[in-house]
Amino acid sequence: MVPTDSADPLALHLQEVRRGTVVLACLTACKEPQYGYSLLDTLARAQIQVEANTLYPLLRRLDKQGLLTAEWNTDEPRPRKYYTLTDAGSRVAEDLRAEWLALTESLTDLWKDI
Amino acid sequence: MVPTDSADPLALHLQEVRRGTVVLACLTACKEPQYGYSLLDTLARAQIQVEANTLYPLLRRLDKQGLLTAEWNTDEPRPRKYYTLTDAGSRVAEDLRAEWLALTESLTDLWKDI
Repeated sequence: MVPTDSADPLALHLQEVRRGTVVLACLTACKEPQYGYSLLDTLARAQIQVEANTLYPLLRRLDKQGLLTAEWNTDEPRPRKYYTLTDAGSRVAEDLRAEWLALTESLTDLWKDI
Repeated sequence: MVPTDSADPLALHLQEVRRGTVVLACLTACKEPQYGYSLLDTLARAQIQVEANTLYPLLRRLDKQGLLTAEWNTDEPRPRKYYTLTDAGSRVAEDLRAEWLALTESLTDLWKDI
């Protein structure tokens, strides 16, 4: 989805700001094993807007990148695929968190100075 | 630039987090009229990494979207194109700032709770 100039610029720029948080939020939430719906619910309670049709492909992508592991739990009446953070995922989550905090500091400087 | 799974996942996810800040940082910095190099310098001093070949097309895009105005200043020995925030740009910058702060609060909740 490349932003085009014909659409509402605010919507496009907001989407770009939000997009960067979704991976970080997912990885953070998956420190506890999560299945799709529980993760959507955790993110929604944290006011992070993400739709199922964005989240599910992202989970598969993070699994493929080795940042999450996926495992079916068949002990419950309804089998569910649980995603859990790997050690590599944990390191990436920490680096992204550090980057987020550094960017927040940078933006705060700009807001103050100008 | 769609991220692919073959590249380093951390680099891709960092890039996605940073990308969302560049528009916000540019608009904020252009509250004072800026030419390309002065803007690069302002952003670099705020530790916001952006390259000239990313910034210049972005400035043209923001001008086209009506968020910045571009004007040549020919009073100086070397003519320079100055970009300044418009009223529409100022509203978008405020909305993006509010979104950034809300996302930071959401992420802080997740970091705390999990």
